[in-house]
Amino acid sequence: MTSRLESELHAQPAALRSFLTTGAAAAAAVRELAAATCGVVIAARGSSDNAARYARYLVPLVAEREVTLATPSLLTAYGAAPTVWRRLVVGISQSGRSPDIVAVLRDARERGAPTLAVTNDPASDLAAQADLILPLHVGEERSVAATGTYTASLAAVAVLAAGLAPEPAAEALLADLDRVPDLVERALGVDVDEAVEVFGASWRGVTVGRGVNLATAHEAALKLTELTGSLVTPFSPADLRHGPIGAVGPATPVLLVAPDEAASASVLDLRAELRERGAPVVVTGPDLPGPLPGLVSPIVAVVPAQKLAWRLALARGVDVDAPGGLHKITETE
Amino acid sequence: MTSRLESELHAQPAALRSFLTTGAAAAAAVRELAAATCGVVIAARGSSDNAARYARYLVPLVAEREVTLATPSLLTAYGAAPTVWRRLVVGISQSGRSPDIVAVLRDARERGAPTLAVTNDPASDLAAQADLILPLHVGEERSVAATGTYTASLAAVAVLAAGLAPEPAAEALLADLDRVPDLVERALGVDVDEAVEVFGASWRGVTVGRGVNLATAHEAALKLTELTGSLVTPFSPADLRHGPIGAVGPATPVLLVAPDEAASASVLDLRAELRERGAPVVVTGPDLPGPLPGLVSPIVAVVPAQKLAWRLALARGVDVDAPGGLHKITETE
Repeated sequence: MTSRLESELHAQPAALRSFLTTGAAAAAAVRELAAATCGVVIAARGSSDNAARYARYLVPLVAEREVTLATPSLLTAYGAAPTVWRRLVVGISQSGRSPDIVAVLRDARERGAPTLAVTNDPASDLAAQADLILPLHVGEERSVAATGTYTASLAAVAVLAAGLAPEPAAEALLADLDRVPDLVERALGVDVDEAVEVFGASWRGVTVGRGVNLATAHEAALKLTELTGSLVTPFSPADLRHGPIGAVGPATPVLLVAPDEAASASVLDLRAELRERGAPVVVTGPDLPGPLPGLVSPIVAVVPAQKLAWRLALARGVDVDAPGGLHKITETE
Repeated sequence: MTSRLESELHAQPAALRSFLTTGAAAAAAVRELAAATCGVVIAARGSSDNAARYARYLVPLVAEREVTLATPSLLTAYGAAPTVWRRLVVGISQSGRSPDIVAVLRDARERGAPTLAVTNDPASDLAAQADLILPLHVGEERSVAATGTYTASLAAVAVLAAGLAPEPAAEALLADLDRVPDLVERALGVDVDEAVEVFGASWRGVTVGRGVNLATAHEAALKLTELTGSLVTPFSPADLRHGPIGAVGPATPVLLVAPDEAASASVLDLRAELRERGAPVVVTGPDLPGPLPGLVSPIVAVVPAQKLAWRLALARGVDVDAPGGLHKITETE
């Protein structure tokens, strides 16, 4: 029987195409909503927080606006609200039901800030607090591990960035985005057999990414951890070198995320040192379909990592739709 | 022979006392420097980045100012500088020699932003780019794993927050800080035998913290990883529950960081679920000396975790002054 996860993985190109049919219109709506703002605050958890990590690089790069990640527990544990003056406040939540993310948007709206919801459920509590909704067009995602909602959230972040960017950067980014669904489709065909073998030999691992693909390293680690039972930790090259690399050896497989992109050189530079330590190294980058525009590369680069996590979980006999006995919605405050 | 690490661990109370002799004066200098600013940007790596994590909670809580973590690779990989308008730009680096952190301060200064260096070397490149230096008073830290410079950096962050806060919050925070050296001294006496046994049984692990002590969970994971060879991943309770908890079982020891503090309840709430999964759980909080003011609790709560990492490394035969064959200064760009 085909798992829901497998179906959702392979539905990504169609979901992205559907989302992008309204991409330019959504970017224009963002532009209007954000007209009086000079920065962005994003509240998110889990995979959505990794989409926010992408925004921290992409938005300053193309739109010269600062992105601050909200710390929802400031509000829910201490009652201290984030600064929202002249900020566009964005909540990213596939279900739209994370109470702490909803709380940040509700509070921002009460204080007069423009609010944007990126969610797969336009009827959710989160959407109800938003001046503008970017619906993810993914259909009901039923497996615990988010795949299609992650890549769609990245596309929504890129649309957000295009909405904030001046021309011609905005138009160029939207043109790059339009090429993404085909590239994702081809990335689904990437061979992950070797990576499955390498990561299958251990119950721990490391992922490394930088710049726009720091998000990819985080999401790859999260997918591997939640699906396979391995505990996988994400790092930037600098943070890995600052000490944790001492723990990396033959029993620690490493995934280097390095599409052809400005920030990838220092990720690839790690190869020699990792191999000296005896660590099995897998690189994703050269195997990706192309030409792959650097700024949207995270939407494509995560796909082989999703496939690796899925395939390794299958090899380990995991129920991939409910790994670790978990349910889909986690209502944390 | 006493290792440098052991000496540095036990020198923390004296280093903190020395640093705090000028705490109030330093806070006043921060207040003057930051008079025309309305937010803070911090650039840091490794342990210093965990001090920045503390700032992300403490500064908004006591001073209602926003803290943004700079993404140094935006500047060094893409040439895109962070927003510094009306920001106090802070670099935290014990050596003061991380080129990417120096680059962020240099760039900010060239654009007219007030700059602050938190460093153990007042003659470093970082200090040379700063309008104000908060020297850490730690003496030369020679073991690879930062301990005294971490707790001193947290104290510097608290002084920074006091400098930005209105009265009476500023004075109250400085009064809390003055109690910290004695509390750290008593925390060094906390018994970690059980924790050493629990974490010694596995080569992977998890730490959990929230609010001001999310920083403590990150720093505990970093110390354990760089010193013991275990790969230990830090989480907030929400992020752990969102999926990774599925990978937690009998082979995954968990350290819950939960001093008596507003954000700790949801950390402690995890105990039942973790035990159901068979995970060995260690809690730090009830064992800490008191009364422990919540806002400065991270400076004390990290100490048993440092001791745990040191003791486990010894038990594993690691050269604790050069674990993994690493050197002290990592010059990453």
